[in-house]
Amino acid sequence: MAASSFALSQAATTLSPSAALAMNLPLIQPNYLLLYPPSPSPFLRPQIHLNSLLTRCHSPAFLAIDAVEKANSGHPGLPMGCAPMGHILYDEVMRYNPKNPYWFNRDRFVLSAGHGCMLHYALLHLAGYDSVKEEDLKQFRQWGSKTPGHPENFETPGIEVTTGPLGQGIANAVGLAVAEKHLAARFNKPDAKIVDHYTYCILGDGCQMEGIANEACSLAGHWGLGKLIAFYDDNHISIDGDTEIAFTESVDRRFEALGWHIVWVKNGNNGYDDIRAAIKEAKAVTDKPTLIKVTTTIGFGSPNKANSYSVHGAALGAKEVDATRQNLGWPYEPFHVPEDVKKHWSRHTAEGAALESEWNVKFGEYEKKYAEDAAELKSIADGVLPNGWEKALPKYTPDIPGDATRNLSQSCLNALAPVLPGLLGGSADLASSNMTLMKMFGDFQKNAPEERNVRFGVREHGMAAICNGIALHSPGFIPYCATFFVFTDYMRGAMRLSALSETRVIYVMTHDSIGLAYKVAVENRKRPSVLALSRQKLPNLPGTSIEGVAKGGYIVSDDSSGNTPDVILIGTGSELEIAVKAADELRKDGKSVRVVSFVSWELFDEQSNEYKESVLPGSVTGRVSIEAGSTFGWERIVGSKGKVIGIDKFGASAPAGKIYKEYGITVEAVIAAAKEVC
Amino acid sequence: MAASSFALSQAATTLSPSAALAMNLPLIQPNYLLLYPPSPSPFLRPQIHLNSLLTRCHSPAFLAIDAVEKANSGHPGLPMGCAPMGHILYDEVMRYNPKNPYWFNRDRFVLSAGHGCMLHYALLHLAGYDSVKEEDLKQFRQWGSKTPGHPENFETPGIEVTTGPLGQGIANAVGLAVAEKHLAARFNKPDAKIVDHYTYCILGDGCQMEGIANEACSLAGHWGLGKLIAFYDDNHISIDGDTEIAFTESVDRRFEALGWHIVWVKNGNNGYDDIRAAIKEAKAVTDKPTLIKVTTTIGFGSPNKANSYSVHGAALGAKEVDATRQNLGWPYEPFHVPEDVKKHWSRHTAEGAALESEWNVKFGEYEKKYAEDAAELKSIADGVLPNGWEKALPKYTPDIPGDATRNLSQSCLNALAPVLPGLLGGSADLASSNMTLMKMFGDFQKNAPEERNVRFGVREHGMAAICNGIALHSPGFIPYCATFFVFTDYMRGAMRLSALSETRVIYVMTHDSIGLAYKVAVENRKRPSVLALSRQKLPNLPGTSIEGVAKGGYIVSDDSSGNTPDVILIGTGSELEIAVKAADELRKDGKSVRVVSFVSWELFDEQSNEYKESVLPGSVTGRVSIEAGSTFGWERIVGSKGKVIGIDKFGASAPAGKIYKEYGITVEAVIAAAKEVC
Repeated sequence: MAASSFALSQAATTLSPSAALAMNLPLIQPNYLLLYPPSPSPFLRPQIHLNSLLTRCHSPAFLAIDAVEKANSGHPGLPMGCAPMGHILYDEVMRYNPKNPYWFNRDRFVLSAGHGCMLHYALLHLAGYDSVKEEDLKQFRQWGSKTPGHPENFETPGIEVTTGPLGQGIANAVGLAVAEKHLAARFNKPDAKIVDHYTYCILGDGCQMEGIANEACSLAGHWGLGKLIAFYDDNHISIDGDTEIAFTESVDRRFEALGWHIVWVKNGNNGYDDIRAAIKEAKAVTDKPTLIKVTTTIGFGSPNKANSYSVHGAALGAKEVDATRQNLGWPYEPFHVPEDVKKHWSRHTAEGAALESEWNVKFGEYEKKYAEDAAELKSIADGVLPNGWEKALPKYTPDIPGDATRNLSQSCLNALAPVLPGLLGGSADLASSNMTLMKMFGDFQKNAPEERNVRFGVREHGMAAICNGIALHSPGFIPYCATFFVFTDYMRGAMRLSALSETRVIYVMTHDSIGLAYKVAVENRKRPSVLALSRQKLPNLPGTSIEGVAKGGYIVSDDSSGNTPDVILIGTGSELEIAVKAADELRKDGKSVRVVSFVSWELFDEQSNEYKESVLPGSVTGRVSIEAGSTFGWERIVGSKGKVIGIDKFGASAPAGKIYKEYGITVEAVIAAAKEVC
Repeated sequence: MAASSFALSQAATTLSPSAALAMNLPLIQPNYLLLYPPSPSPFLRPQIHLNSLLTRCHSPAFLAIDAVEKANSGHPGLPMGCAPMGHILYDEVMRYNPKNPYWFNRDRFVLSAGHGCMLHYALLHLAGYDSVKEEDLKQFRQWGSKTPGHPENFETPGIEVTTGPLGQGIANAVGLAVAEKHLAARFNKPDAKIVDHYTYCILGDGCQMEGIANEACSLAGHWGLGKLIAFYDDNHISIDGDTEIAFTESVDRRFEALGWHIVWVKNGNNGYDDIRAAIKEAKAVTDKPTLIKVTTTIGFGSPNKANSYSVHGAALGAKEVDATRQNLGWPYEPFHVPEDVKKHWSRHTAEGAALESEWNVKFGEYEKKYAEDAAELKSIADGVLPNGWEKALPKYTPDIPGDATRNLSQSCLNALAPVLPGLLGGSADLASSNMTLMKMFGDFQKNAPEERNVRFGVREHGMAAICNGIALHSPGFIPYCATFFVFTDYMRGAMRLSALSETRVIYVMTHDSIGLAYKVAVENRKRPSVLALSRQKLPNLPGTSIEGVAKGGYIVSDDSSGNTPDVILIGTGSELEIAVKAADELRKDGKSVRVVSFVSWELFDEQSNEYKESVLPGSVTGRVSIEAGSTFGWERIVGSKGKVIGIDKFGASAPAGKIYKEYGITVEAVIAAAKEVC
């Protein structure tokens, strides 16, 4: 650290960068000292050493400025203010291998304030990641580029999680840190610390205001995630202006209340040593996560736009880019990375490779000594499911007495837990209602992080985002989370990101063939699944099958010939039983009836046209769907001549049978509808 | 207060309630002292005076126990632990008129932990509200009753807001307190304090864990809502057990960080004087909201179930009900309210009537002195819109240059603000993007609460719930709130409650005829509206009309005769322009084309069958819908032979034109689809 550290000095020449340029002085040399003329704003003309460290710190900031300028779209403000902390993290602190962004034991970094992603792209570029070449920086925010306007884990190796919607990233970071703490406790041995990395995160004022962030950070404190280090970019500006207008709480004290360790770096714009000291302090506190509040200036260095909203979400404009170059003494062409900066960063390629190969040697020794643990860990790290895991799934036949599908779900989870090393999860304070406890394990807690039942408290949104983080830590993780189906409303922000960022999160909330539901969910490596389960008992219906469920929709029974029943009754989940009973009655009346179990529109859509036609022949327009939920969208299935039975209003308070009757979700209603359409 | 207050005494007899009953001693008399035998649990055998206050406090608890028992469903735990604070609020502190639950200047009470609603029903019953008679208590959780399993403002006069989904109620309470603070600042005069009431709330551990609660409480602190007094039922139990497993933060310190005043009542089970003192202290702090942390025992009084999850959400069972009666010395039959309790509460009818009539006199004087203000306040209090308000709406014609609908929205808001006294609102840190500022007003702030632009910060879920609270304060309030349309995902929990609880909240997020959109939204007194607006410029298209928009869907142009065009192109919002252009091309090719603007499925559904048939004739199956969003649900409109054009995947990063092209939302795509169907 000695070589690159320096103290801020008040002593200075009065040479301005532009004057230096005019005099053709070599600007890029160690300890070349600049003092800008006095200014009313403390933000714009910092007293700085223009030495090689500074040059290096300016490099990511200017790459961001230039890329946003070229795209004429994007967010330069955060990269300009956060370049020092970003630089120190990627250049001095983090352990990673740029040539293998997926190296298992790497430190993880999350930019929760995802709009500032040009900073992250610039750092990845400087650090030697092949995913972000100079050409990619120039394609910022363009169609098909590796550098979209918000960072996407599935587009750009080196990006750990998709961020942009505020508050999600810090919650993902909590999930990443949970994953590390869990794996370390479960697999490390006194003689082999095989899992050992940090999770870093930068979040801004916007993230701090979001409830999801408080939910996740409360859990981080509760769990004592000592290796989670979050940088709060305290720049006092959000889109509507100064945070004074809507955000005057004490963030430090709130985080203390949540059980975090707090450090405050008062000058984040150029307090490099303070940032380093803060990280050192954070690492020394091993039983609490740390929030490093870093007071920065948004758009630091821009003479006319720094410290204002205008630099948050729009290109600086050519004139201001020039002024910023002048102000910070940056004489280079757009996108130019000075040779000494390149040279400085180039060591990371060799260092990263060495880190990974040292770890590989270590893991080789671990494998010899602890073969069983190594196999489990490998499965989690590589994402390869253990051979034959699916044999553990329970099978349900019609002769088995009826049960609530939430109970069947619990049997599945408990059958799978021993054979799927990456399965872990829990409920938002409804474990006993959702039936999500794995009985052979204890609770994941601060002092029992090797356990696999996670207690999320009443924090649905945070729960889902934490599961996204766990899923993205390693491809073999299969996190599940649970609540009442209606409360998906509380966590749609994170569920959307599960789908978008291709995480295999299992949302435990239905099904008619529950064993298969879990099989489909586990095998969908890049897709979340929702299991919407019943509270009431349901029978194991004849005709239901694992193979059918995998196709989304399938024929449960049919007494017609030639693929031309008079009517098709389409039931889903708990309503399949009603369809079956209605079919019995209709058949007695001489109708030929097909009953179809429809468990997933999405899976059905993915089947061949032949298969779809075999289940729902175009010639049969007499169709009735039945679901105890909104009818919205069922027209796609029943067609314009069909009937939809469902509930297009809110629920009510009464015993269940009474409610089904009052809402018309009955065998009689299905029969009546069927008679209308055939 | 002197008459009913008493100190907890350690001196006592050793007479147990059952022994007293056996000896036929009169149990209900002031200062009759009981000490239960020593017990390992401090919760079960409290040292209490069995005096008339106590009897009264037990009354709501036993009404709750009995009602849950009769329904064999519900939540007795909270009512048993919170009866003392509930009782003191309704009997000693709150100002209300039971015979007019809608009296404007009443104190508001919100049970954020809505599952404990039997406590609230019992208190309303005792206080003399006609909405909750003994018969209603006996119908708890039954079909069509006034006492559903979670409290509904539209079912039960006296219930201010619908609660149940955790965290919503406290955020609604913040909205109610915002409404009061705003109206008081705007309408009170040095000689006439015409608006002057408190907002009380009880919330539990579950509410505290939800992010929405933190969002709303951060704003409450920021705004300095001194007349908001929240009771935190600190019972250490949530559904999964002790809060120790998932919730170990310091709630007190978090609220201090949020800018609240904190009081801790350590013995909420029977620390009556402490509760009273805490309320007094809270009222003395006028510049901050107060959180009274009241440590209670869930299911207090139940010998075998208190302080455990088992008493949270299920009937006690006959045996335990008996044991609880024994333990608390309650000799009465189920649902019985002792005569002296009835007599005690009966004064509220007269007192309430007096409060209201005093206020009416006061308002009469105010009206004479301040006629204009009085008229505005009356409009807010009564919900009657000022005559001719709709004339202020701007009109848009095709000759007016195109503009982004968000800009048109801003014109509407600014035109309406002067004529709608109850219009107030703002954005979740996107005011300059959502265009939601009313230019003639300043920001609603701690020291400027008379203003009407609300700065919500990046807190979408809290924002929506606060608007629900504002809307439910008085029927003339028209709160609006804004964010990017995609972030409805962050606030669906509260939006669902807007719809369910019939609040007129305007969600500023589209439309093709924006003036009318606001008209429809303002006139829908019992329904929230979403306006999804464009960022890009849109033309004022010929054929669009205010009358059409009010019907949800209408014909913009048609060159066919006899209601039989070859094809119907259905555009919505910003895509209507594409439909119009495609129609022009198709007509050149000789097709007869109808263009339909479809702005609201819900409004269209409500039209007559004749109208619907006139717009979308059953005989015309060649239909194409176009919306730059999910195609989900459009089959209902286009039928099984139609085509849907939309986006069934996530967005991407690129200039807008490029994205529309890549996603196939183009004139060419519409023409191609139209040619396929006609």
